[in-house]
Amino acid sequence: MRTIENISIIGTGNVAWHLSRALFNEGFQIDELAGRQEEKTLAFAARVFAEPVLDLKNLKRDADLYIIAVSDAAIAEVAAQMPEVEGMVAHTSGAVGIDVLKRFSKHGVFYPLQTFTEGRLLNFEDIPILVEGNTQETEYVLADVARELTLKVHHISSAQREKLHVAAVFVCNFVNHMYSIGKQLCDQNQLPFDVLHALMLETTKKAVSENPLDVQTGPAIRRDEQTMQKHLSKLTQTELKHMYETISKHIIKTHETQL
Amino acid sequence: MRTIENISIIGTGNVAWHLSRALFNEGFQIDELAGRQEEKTLAFAARVFAEPVLDLKNLKRDADLYIIAVSDAAIAEVAAQMPEVEGMVAHTSGAVGIDVLKRFSKHGVFYPLQTFTEGRLLNFEDIPILVEGNTQETEYVLADVARELTLKVHHISSAQREKLHVAAVFVCNFVNHMYSIGKQLCDQNQLPFDVLHALMLETTKKAVSENPLDVQTGPAIRRDEQTMQKHLSKLTQTELKHMYETISKHIIKTHETQL
Repeated sequence: MRTIENISIIGTGNVAWHLSRALFNEGFQIDELAGRQEEKTLAFAARVFAEPVLDLKNLKRDADLYIIAVSDAAIAEVAAQMPEVEGMVAHTSGAVGIDVLKRFSKHGVFYPLQTFTEGRLLNFEDIPILVEGNTQETEYVLADVARELTLKVHHISSAQREKLHVAAVFVCNFVNHMYSIGKQLCDQNQLPFDVLHALMLETTKKAVSENPLDVQTGPAIRRDEQTMQKHLSKLTQTELKHMYETISKHIIKTHETQL
Repeated sequence: MRTIENISIIGTGNVAWHLSRALFNEGFQIDELAGRQEEKTLAFAARVFAEPVLDLKNLKRDADLYIIAVSDAAIAEVAAQMPEVEGMVAHTSGAVGIDVLKRFSKHGVFYPLQTFTEGRLLNFEDIPILVEGNTQETEYVLADVARELTLKVHHISSAQREKLHVAAVFVCNFVNHMYSIGKQLCDQNQLPFDVLHALMLETTKKAVSENPLDVQTGPAIRRDEQTMQKHLSKLTQTELKHMYETISKHIIKTHETQL
């Protein structure tokens, strides 16, 4: 028998949705699904056979685990509004420390490190889940739940998770912004963006299978000033020129120190 | 019968290698393989059953197509050293205009838009090839050759290709640098970089299947100043702080104009 059987989920966003679906598919009982927006909460709860809860005060007291999957800024408020519970309480944020939940005797973090989008199905098996508990026992129990969903469970402290979150901003948010710029440059010049798709996929696959520091290419690492100047002359927006220069200089600096 | 049967390839780098292998596999006759480094050229030529050529003056005059797959900076020099030939001459660069080859009566560009690495096999079918010819006939013949290798053939002028090359720097070179930074932040904090791999792959797959402008996430687009300040405080290198700020500001600006 599992230590955790009954789970209450708080939140109706993408993380709540993907996580409850994955837990439900693994045979966990999603007892309750709590959200503020009535229509959304009711529809969502029905899909995982959970009781919809619109007021956190009405959460049942005897769930084994409460998962708070709400925006970073709302976690503290949710924690304050919840009733006293004996079960474990965990949030799913990569950026918020464990202490925000310290009013609960058993608390922790259950952070699936992935970018979730509505309607895009993901194979949870490939998604790392980073767990932390206020006690070793709590942490082990959360790790056991995580292992039902994925092969990739990591024990990572709040301090380390904060640093990882900065790294995630670079490899996800900033990378996506580079793609947005590529898309806009294509649009402005009547070029199909999909001509860059194979390059984008291969660049990422390569960085996953090799050390990205070893496979850097382009005018900056070659210190090809002529090409960089030509590129800058093609960029019309001042801020974009500045960004091109800043990143290029940082590539040069990074590989200078490396040498 | 194909218009192009016999091909001479000049260059022994990654593009030359991947392209000659793909052309050879499609049944083209690689007559000659020219390079400056004797050992490398001999070994390479043997693998595609071509004659090795160490001095460009010795290139045969009657190949149907000469492909110059050398570094951008070397194209003009190679073109100057080649004998007068009647066949078509094309280079493979995304950054160099067509005119560098204008001494040849039939000249063009045959640009496979991908990042090539030694030893990494790629499926050429997925790689877009961008062609341009000094005449419509030349361009059509180059497109026919390209279509033997890939389903994705685009007719793109030198002016457009220059702009696409800037876009490619953002979605490939700069993206890889973001991965390098992520890797270094992980290393500095005793975190395994592979914990970010699923995120990197999903971010890129998402940008390929949706408009990246529509799926931007992270503290910058939320204008979450608190998280951004926290992240900045975790970055020790001044230049990295500057880059974090520059990209974050640009995300804000981009999505401001969009609204």
